[in-house]
Amino acid sequence: MFEAAEVGRKIPKQAFETRAREVQTALLAAQRALRDSSIPVVVIVSGVEGAGKGSVVNRLNEWLDARGIETNAFWDETDEDRQRPRYWRFWRALPARGTIGIMFGSWYTRPIIDRVFQRVEEAEFDRELARIAEFERMLVNDGALIVKLWYHLPKKVQRKRLEAESKDRRHSPLLKKFSKRYDRFSEVSERAIRTTDSGPCPWHVVEATDDRYRDLTTAEILLEAVTRRLADAAVTAAAEATAPPTPTEPAREPVAPEASLTILDRVDLTRALSSKAYSRELDRLQAKLRGLAWAARARRRHVIAVFEGWDAAGKGGAIRRVTGAMDARLFRVISVAAPTDEERAHHYLWRFWRHVPRAGHVTIYDRSWYGRVLVERVEGFATDHEWRRAYEEINEFEEQLCEHGTVLMKFWLHISPEEQLERFREREVTPWKEHKITPEDWRNRERWGAYELAVNEMVARTSTAFAPWKVVAANDKRWARTEVLRTFCDRLEEAVS
Amino acid sequence: MFEAAEVGRKIPKQAFETRAREVQTALLAAQRALRDSSIPVVVIVSGVEGAGKGSVVNRLNEWLDARGIETNAFWDETDEDRQRPRYWRFWRALPARGTIGIMFGSWYTRPIIDRVFQRVEEAEFDRELARIAEFERMLVNDGALIVKLWYHLPKKVQRKRLEAESKDRRHSPLLKKFSKRYDRFSEVSERAIRTTDSGPCPWHVVEATDDRYRDLTTAEILLEAVTRRLADAAVTAAAEATAPPTPTEPAREPVAPEASLTILDRVDLTRALSSKAYSRELDRLQAKLRGLAWAARARRRHVIAVFEGWDAAGKGGAIRRVTGAMDARLFRVISVAAPTDEERAHHYLWRFWRHVPRAGHVTIYDRSWYGRVLVERVEGFATDHEWRRAYEEINEFEEQLCEHGTVLMKFWLHISPEEQLERFREREVTPWKEHKITPEDWRNRERWGAYELAVNEMVARTSTAFAPWKVVAANDKRWARTEVLRTFCDRLEEAVS
Repeated sequence: MFEAAEVGRKIPKQAFETRAREVQTALLAAQRALRDSSIPVVVIVSGVEGAGKGSVVNRLNEWLDARGIETNAFWDETDEDRQRPRYWRFWRALPARGTIGIMFGSWYTRPIIDRVFQRVEEAEFDRELARIAEFERMLVNDGALIVKLWYHLPKKVQRKRLEAESKDRRHSPLLKKFSKRYDRFSEVSERAIRTTDSGPCPWHVVEATDDRYRDLTTAEILLEAVTRRLADAAVTAAAEATAPPTPTEPAREPVAPEASLTILDRVDLTRALSSKAYSRELDRLQAKLRGLAWAARARRRHVIAVFEGWDAAGKGGAIRRVTGAMDARLFRVISVAAPTDEERAHHYLWRFWRHVPRAGHVTIYDRSWYGRVLVERVEGFATDHEWRRAYEEINEFEEQLCEHGTVLMKFWLHISPEEQLERFREREVTPWKEHKITPEDWRNRERWGAYELAVNEMVARTSTAFAPWKVVAANDKRWARTEVLRTFCDRLEEAVS
Repeated sequence: MFEAAEVGRKIPKQAFETRAREVQTALLAAQRALRDSSIPVVVIVSGVEGAGKGSVVNRLNEWLDARGIETNAFWDETDEDRQRPRYWRFWRALPARGTIGIMFGSWYTRPIIDRVFQRVEEAEFDRELARIAEFERMLVNDGALIVKLWYHLPKKVQRKRLEAESKDRRHSPLLKKFSKRYDRFSEVSERAIRTTDSGPCPWHVVEATDDRYRDLTTAEILLEAVTRRLADAAVTAAAEATAPPTPTEPAREPVAPEASLTILDRVDLTRALSSKAYSRELDRLQAKLRGLAWAARARRRHVIAVFEGWDAAGKGGAIRRVTGAMDARLFRVISVAAPTDEERAHHYLWRFWRHVPRAGHVTIYDRSWYGRVLVERVEGFATDHEWRRAYEEINEFEEQLCEHGTVLMKFWLHISPEEQLERFREREVTPWKEHKITPEDWRNRERWGAYELAVNEMVARTSTAFAPWKVVAANDKRWARTEVLRTFCDRLEEAVS
């Protein structure tokens, strides 16, 4: 695969200067057009040591308009990085729509190096590559353009370069290690490239022997990719403009409960607790949780709890019973409201990745990424494609959290429509509760059936072994709160034992 | 000062429940009004160990609407925190306009603890307190409301509480240390409170013996402060609405150059370099910088370089000559464009604090916080008060950077109006440069005199011993680029030797 990049292509200085100007002019025009699009561009700069990846990065920064381009170098990890799932730092660095993010080093770097130095088995390596492919597909589905560049040098050329470089101080600490492992590195990276070379996200192997050829080819690849992507976007937009309007509101109605008994139907909403029993249980469970939260911190476990449920199901009250039992320094509650413009300019999971806790901390999401398959689905804010593929994206996200050792709990607080009505009415007449009821709540209520369908599908499709849903009967607040606390305690106990 | 908080105030349960509901309802209303204002609210929760600060935080989270409130606990520092000036973590946590940020622990914590355990001298402690006062004044000037709460316990009560708490696992590691140092802690914190108790930012000392009194008083203080601040804002808005419109465009014109020779007038714009000499110098300086950048990294020095200058003065070109000599993993260029809505919702320095580099890294700002006293001043985007106090705020910011060991360089690239005109015209006809010229550039050009005045004042008022301006003659690009590189090398050399 790399042979094609060993033919010794060169560009003379004069030809380079002429062509470079043309390409730069075209690139700048493309970058301007990009700015008004909703396309984030990820440029991955990778390849063998000594190929001049740093020079390529500098060159791109020179040729492009600095506004709307950001370079991210991934080498040393901070402890904030280390204390979170591995992809956190990449999520942090993803470019916003309309801008270009140059990744100097990327999600490929560590898997390849780990494999070269035989820190991981082949099976594990393949699994990493599959994860990468999935990650990239997710970004592409969201509208991203990913340009993957691999810079190649023939063995002899590399050796010569590394010898020359070791005389000055530019060399990185890894440099010597690599020159001895050329063949091994070639073999491993070829496998990585082959496995992740997909139609929407192809690799471009660039011969790096001649600097001018390398830089010019890079610019041409980037130009072609951006131009094509912009044209595709224009075609799609035109097709959408001429196509008959699709109903934004899916006409799907729930099937009759007799025909299919759903998960929610099986919830026993009569469960209740007397005031006295509640008081006793609450004290007992909170005392227990208090100790467990400290124990989880001592073991540096991450804890994430997601609260979803019908409007007025009592999410806030349940959350406060949990946080009331924890030291305020241990947890953080994220109330999910309308996204900021920085958040809107990224993949919808970006804003949740932002808040993933460090080791020993608890993050509670009051509503969460599940909005995608609930409100966004039902109200038509997400397209059919978008919410349908979200299940897989969410499962993948949660798997990463759990692999990193996160204790992930997901609660659905379930009430009956009658109970909801009663609570809405109470809220309207109670001064310290009226802020909780809005016209939107009444509107949502009218679509109970559509939401029910969405909730059932969500619970069914995202109840994984590592992150099962806990559906809580919440017609009785006392019962619901103790159930939540009990689950919290059980899961933490399991995690610290 | 603390005696007034040892009178043993209590609130019976019944009275508490009634009053709590009223206060909560009023607080929620205030919070709603706040949301539409441009006021960020900072609530500092501090005080003696055992006073139940955590419970207060939980209580506030219970009573307020979770949307628009965020709790930040400052206890363990991450290495990302440690590698930056001490206030970085506080800046990160500042609430956006219209929201409430609860600070559990704050900028007071470490100075007080350091002084209690005699890690710092009294003079240094006082200096820290002065810095805090300045920081708070800056936030208040920007429209913030800061509510500072200090929870106090009489000695006997504290001892009893700590004994009780040490039986369960809630206690923090510092707990035992503190119980023995009650008097010392009292004395130091009294000094801190007294020194930083200013009119716009008063302290509230709250007796914490009775939980109900403590929580209710907290809510009442917060309610009163928010209500008053909202009323002030309304008065100001009304006054502005009825006052005769002030000219947004300051009528200030530069005095005749004969009358006052300015800094810019003294720049010798005839300095130039032949192509051959340039080529030699560039190679020499870039090679030198290459080594110095690695040396600076090895010594974990932070480097910040600010580039300001007339439109078309050659900032971009100069920056690329610097970055071209550095490994792409070492630096990051921040091009300052229009702020995002998250940035707009904070103090204008917030967006620059965001990008302060970690140890061993270089951040280059292509335009910077000086926009406040340049374009924002001249174009009237900042009020008179705003840009006038910015000099002090900027000096304070830069002093913090430098105290933390940052090498801070500031370049003003200076050209004559004639040279600018020539470059504008060239840009208009050169395909790969036309993106650099906009109607705004022509408009700015018409106000050369006003900008000149602003630049002179900026250089005069912010050229400090720790961060002097380097005014670079830039009519000749070759001269300017080597000057910048030379300064870069000199400053780095000084820093690593």
